[in-house]
Amino acid sequence: MSKGIKSREEDYSQWYNDIIYKADLADQSAVRGCMIIKPYGFAIWEKMKGALDQMFKDTGHVNAYFPLFIPKSFLSKEAAHVEGFAKECAVVTHYRLKNDPNGSGVIVDPTAKLEEELIVRPTSETIIWNSYKKWIQSYRDLPLLINQWANVVRWELRTRPFLRTTEFLWQEGHTAHATKEEAEEETVKMLNVYATFAEEWMAMPVIKGVKTESERFAGALDTYCIEALMQDGKALQAGTSHFLGQNFAKAFDVKFVNKENKEEHVWATSWGVSTRLVGALIMAHSDDKGLVLPPKLAPYPIVIVPIHKTEEGKEKVLKLASDIKTVMKNRGIDVKVDDADNVRPGFKFAEYELKGVPIRITIGERDLANDLVEVARRDTGEKASISTEGLSEHLSSLLDDIQANIYKKAADFRSKKITEVNDWDEFVKTLEEKGGFISAHWDGTAETETKIKEMTKATIRCIPLDNKQEDGPCILSGKPSKKRVLFAKAY
Amino acid sequence: MSKGIKSREEDYSQWYNDIIYKADLADQSAVRGCMIIKPYGFAIWEKMKGALDQMFKDTGHVNAYFPLFIPKSFLSKEAAHVEGFAKECAVVTHYRLKNDPNGSGVIVDPTAKLEEELIVRPTSETIIWNSYKKWIQSYRDLPLLINQWANVVRWELRTRPFLRTTEFLWQEGHTAHATKEEAEEETVKMLNVYATFAEEWMAMPVIKGVKTESERFAGALDTYCIEALMQDGKALQAGTSHFLGQNFAKAFDVKFVNKENKEEHVWATSWGVSTRLVGALIMAHSDDKGLVLPPKLAPYPIVIVPIHKTEEGKEKVLKLASDIKTVMKNRGIDVKVDDADNVRPGFKFAEYELKGVPIRITIGERDLANDLVEVARRDTGEKASISTEGLSEHLSSLLDDIQANIYKKAADFRSKKITEVNDWDEFVKTLEEKGGFISAHWDGTAETETKIKEMTKATIRCIPLDNKQEDGPCILSGKPSKKRVLFAKAY
Repeated sequence: MSKGIKSREEDYSQWYNDIIYKADLADQSAVRGCMIIKPYGFAIWEKMKGALDQMFKDTGHVNAYFPLFIPKSFLSKEAAHVEGFAKECAVVTHYRLKNDPNGSGVIVDPTAKLEEELIVRPTSETIIWNSYKKWIQSYRDLPLLINQWANVVRWELRTRPFLRTTEFLWQEGHTAHATKEEAEEETVKMLNVYATFAEEWMAMPVIKGVKTESERFAGALDTYCIEALMQDGKALQAGTSHFLGQNFAKAFDVKFVNKENKEEHVWATSWGVSTRLVGALIMAHSDDKGLVLPPKLAPYPIVIVPIHKTEEGKEKVLKLASDIKTVMKNRGIDVKVDDADNVRPGFKFAEYELKGVPIRITIGERDLANDLVEVARRDTGEKASISTEGLSEHLSSLLDDIQANIYKKAADFRSKKITEVNDWDEFVKTLEEKGGFISAHWDGTAETETKIKEMTKATIRCIPLDNKQEDGPCILSGKPSKKRVLFAKAY
Repeated sequence: MSKGIKSREEDYSQWYNDIIYKADLADQSAVRGCMIIKPYGFAIWEKMKGALDQMFKDTGHVNAYFPLFIPKSFLSKEAAHVEGFAKECAVVTHYRLKNDPNGSGVIVDPTAKLEEELIVRPTSETIIWNSYKKWIQSYRDLPLLINQWANVVRWELRTRPFLRTTEFLWQEGHTAHATKEEAEEETVKMLNVYATFAEEWMAMPVIKGVKTESERFAGALDTYCIEALMQDGKALQAGTSHFLGQNFAKAFDVKFVNKENKEEHVWATSWGVSTRLVGALIMAHSDDKGLVLPPKLAPYPIVIVPIHKTEEGKEKVLKLASDIKTVMKNRGIDVKVDDADNVRPGFKFAEYELKGVPIRITIGERDLANDLVEVARRDTGEKASISTEGLSEHLSSLLDDIQANIYKKAADFRSKKITEVNDWDEFVKTLEEKGGFISAHWDGTAETETKIKEMTKATIRCIPLDNKQEDGPCILSGKPSKKRVLFAKAY
């Protein structure tokens, strides 16, 4: 490739990185494990954020903002939570620097040591439930349906842009309810919101399921997830929704007086998706020519490249470009007109292919004389001459087509990559040769789960919600199982 | 006040805090100096953010995201910057906790010490210019017009909700330009964006000016600002825009090849506003009954309180409420219908007065029979019976009236509080008895500026951009001055 992108077949991992850096989505930073989200990449995240935020508001949630820092002692209040979260995180120990008496730089002022260290939030359950204690007294204060858009920090050993970074951006919903049933309902409701977003906006099919005990969020009674399949046959967890029971309410002593005038502990959920979704989006749809974006999340779903030789032609071509932009704007679709004079059209074509812009329109002088423009779609590479008459309707419906086609392509790929497997040899062989999701029986024990992971690197991604009851022997132990689960190697 | 709000006259400072906590805008947190922005307060910030973000985009800026952490050594690269910023900040020294062998909690793992400490960003010039070095090679890469919405941390000794908190939310624009003129133009352009936002959205008149050398941003050649006046006669800096010259480009060695094929250092600006604006908004307009919000920034500019006695009446009243909500939604105006059954209307009236909702509509059964509703405006307290015929036009124009009236009230107040003063005794007397802005001559020296501050606590808020040339003697030293400057006590 002239663009310097490795093919997926040659080196999938390098292909992913190449797309990120060449399409200007992100850059490395001077801080280990932290990335810079560049404007084009951030614009995708902004589109995701806008759509999700509206879905959260439509389901009755409101946004708030809690502190970045968590007092160290808070983390150890919920036993399982501290085990899972308190370990690899950024610790603030001092609050002042001073001039280095021996040099020109600055050093940490040893006299400015905090009495209690502060942890940069890896997730906010503890600091939020500490506030909920104050805010919740009566059943009238419930439900409390709060979401927060924030940055969080987890000191990861191995990082990959978007998929796993030390600092990342996310949203975390934290809700409080009067009953177990209502909290469980909320957990599933938000799982469905995530699944709808993944499928309708990201054009990425997902499987809804529940995690096994060992893969649960630290402090949860149940973790629901959506699992997507990447083009290399590995799974990616794209969002989680946790039923927390009364664990955090008990840890932070959050009680309410119910309608019968009795005190009870509050029921909780939390749920989140992060900038990891941008990584999932890249991996789900892109090809060896670069990024492929679904129209609904493209920073600009249409780019116009005007081509002209004469001054008179330039005027006409740019006038049409500007008209199309205005008409589409009224339909809620952003159009970029690239009228840069110092760059050749061929270079622009390559650039927008790399950046995954769903539709490229080329307006040339000769075509224009016949009231035609060239419309090229990124997903299939097809080009067509289209009349300027009725162009906006054509573009709108073409964007819908592209969105649907990208989804279909991913769904077809995934269908082929879900394999029912009934014995161990077949399991190992499928995992090695075909990859993807393997639907198989498991005896339900953590012991078997761990053994399988150690032997094959495959984990149980989830127990799909729509899996039917079915008797069968565990692929490893042969012990009885009531339901198939989904195995895969995963990001 | 039954609501438990101190009057402004009695205790201005307490009045401010009372409004914040009683109107549910924010709460204290477990972390010293950090506040929790509660949903109602955060909704105001979201409205501000939405309007500003659109203004930034309309002026050609794009959003990106840079790391939360800054390597310690970066801060000392720009000499003035480190003096102004590197001192009071949160320092991350470790990246892991471990179980306390002597107890049940967790302790910092001493083996997980960072080689170089990380600073939680107090502002991002250094980490951003370190990237710009990679991104800028040629004049074709310029201008670079990037904005970031982020949280920042400055370890403040004395904090006040919204006005000064250890962690706060803000936006920071960081632009790079090929010429000095273009960078200066950008600095003033963004100052004007801030002024427009303050006046048209916040309904808060501001004075545009430039800071004296001693009040400049650490590392800037010029700091422009907008200054607003609060009801207690103190000034509040509401936004700043800095012309950074080539200081950061030199500190981080950011050069570009110009059109003449010569290498030059890049010219820079930075500009920011923060959640402090929410504090300014509260202080600028609110009264002893609670918050007063300008319609353009109210989370919901209209609230409807339905009152009914019969089941049949309830149905009719709620139907009309829902119709009004839909019609106004189509006009882009959010309406809240408060149909809670377990709260009395009087309680609701008090609640929405406290929360500063611009218009309250009461729909009662009897009025409805005559096709009338009661419309009350928060800013003046006026109530009127309005026909349901043509109601939506009436409401839209009433919201415009309220927006304009709130602005006018603040502007009239400020006009009365700008005093031209020509000698020292008058200066001291005006400052003590009247407060507000004092327009006076100053000899231009930091020495006099410091003396005045020590003697009176008044600082030079700015040299207003529209102040005319005028000879006169400095109020303190008597030395010649060419222009009046604006003094005030300030937040």
